[in-house]
Amino acid sequence: MDKAAAAKAPLSSADIIAAAAPGEWQRVDAQDLMLVDLSDGSRVAIALAPAFAPVHVANIRALVRAHWFDAGTIYRVQDNYVVQWGQGDDDKAPPQGLGKALPAEYERPAAGLPITPLPYRDTFAPRVGYSGAFPAAADGAGKDARSWMAHCYGIVGVARGLTPDTGSGGELYAVMGQSPRQLDRNIALVGRVLDGFEHMTALPRGTGALGFYEKPEQRTVVKRVQIAADLPAEARPAYEWLRPDSASFAKWLHLRANRQDTFYARPAGAIDLCNAMPPVRRVKS
Amino acid sequence: MDKAAAAKAPLSSADIIAAAAPGEWQRVDAQDLMLVDLSDGSRVAIALAPAFAPVHVANIRALVRAHWFDAGTIYRVQDNYVVQWGQGDDDKAPPQGLGKALPAEYERPAAGLPITPLPYRDTFAPRVGYSGAFPAAADGAGKDARSWMAHCYGIVGVARGLTPDTGSGGELYAVMGQSPRQLDRNIALVGRVLDGFEHMTALPRGTGALGFYEKPEQRTVVKRVQIAADLPAEARPAYEWLRPDSASFAKWLHLRANRQDTFYARPAGAIDLCNAMPPVRRVKS
Repeated sequence: MDKAAAAKAPLSSADIIAAAAPGEWQRVDAQDLMLVDLSDGSRVAIALAPAFAPVHVANIRALVRAHWFDAGTIYRVQDNYVVQWGQGDDDKAPPQGLGKALPAEYERPAAGLPITPLPYRDTFAPRVGYSGAFPAAADGAGKDARSWMAHCYGIVGVARGLTPDTGSGGELYAVMGQSPRQLDRNIALVGRVLDGFEHMTALPRGTGALGFYEKPEQRTVVKRVQIAADLPAEARPAYEWLRPDSASFAKWLHLRANRQDTFYARPAGAIDLCNAMPPVRRVKS
Repeated sequence: MDKAAAAKAPLSSADIIAAAAPGEWQRVDAQDLMLVDLSDGSRVAIALAPAFAPVHVANIRALVRAHWFDAGTIYRVQDNYVVQWGQGDDDKAPPQGLGKALPAEYERPAAGLPITPLPYRDTFAPRVGYSGAFPAAADGAGKDARSWMAHCYGIVGVARGLTPDTGSGGELYAVMGQSPRQLDRNIALVGRVLDGFEHMTALPRGTGALGFYEKPEQRTVVKRVQIAADLPAEARPAYEWLRPDSASFAKWLHLRANRQDTFYARPAGAIDLCNAMPPVRRVKS
């Protein structure tokens, strides 16, 4: 492309993100940054979401600090659905006090949860948008309205048995396929994978029912899980998300929904909640 | 579960599919069944969709029969987006007459295309549903209405350069992540993966821009691609889909959208187009 053409070329998503002001980014709190280290040396970074499931998130932090997840495994990989990790062994009990039944934090009052609305129709909820780095939905706008996180690609949930069991947070899964939004409000969602998800999503699919591995040796070992705040400052990774209430995010979102450029002949005029989650970047700690 | 409880338990998706009558299933035409054999011995089966892109599908069949795809590679795997295969080499020209520019079959008249409607809101189109084994959308119901296939998980499209290039069908991709429906009507969609997709989706992600592999040795070799009709009858695999206009499909779809059972405490009341594509089964040929 010559310079004149480049000057006229519409801004790309990458251009908008690169031009965002420092104040439009927000740092993930080190207390909310969970680092999952796999045995091959790769790392998956997850932002926890205390605004959506405070009791579960607190229990997960406590489980991490009690080394519950260390030397665990990824024991389930179901194509177009989820990857799941933890101890995966019903006979192994979580540490004292951390395995108890938790409240069913499947939703919360919409009041007090800032949501930047996504101005497009959603199949499942009358209101959807973004709260912090997370996709969110609500059943209305009144004072009794309820809100919840949406099951999008990379969103992390608490595996559980049948109702009314709620899970302890000791077994976790992340969505890796078409968003199973029908699960919304039936499970506690606790976070979002920010980085390294490809180390989970590219694992061989389990051939047992529901994608469980049939042989123990097929499992990938989870060497250790840590909360970033517990690492020495110089060893702490850090991430920021583009605030959904920022001008750059609004511009980026509009472009995601209305691409018309050298590739896109026909702009869609809309974008799906799960296809426009706030951009994330790794930064110096 | 004791027998009394089992008798009262609601039908599961699997129960509904198992109880479907033979006439509710429809066989994939052997001329439309494309078999992609990878070098590790695994096979990916794809149903071609001549109703949506007849010229592209005819050209793909001709390319297969000219052995264009044989000894090709999977050269791009982008997490939460697409896996792409073909020759992946701009210097290699398709066989005589098969590399020409094709008409932009990004959409077609809605008239003449039977669509069983999905009775839930869609973010992108006023009408969505299923036509044969494929997810479909339309911009209206009048005589001038246009229709197109939707970019869902496992849907196969024709890779192309910038507009107005349309691609020849010699490089193909399949969606493997959250449905990028914003691409609808910008690309010719030609089929759906029916079986073996996990042999593509679990491949390591490419680390180059857009998920292209950076080193040739990272590519997975595509040993050969065949049209099932060209195999001896006894070697032909066969697949059927549950007809979207059947009573069993309607029942299955309703359950997908309204699960309320031992796991689901709160039925969603809706299901996404890409999460309820007609079930497929392998059958004896």
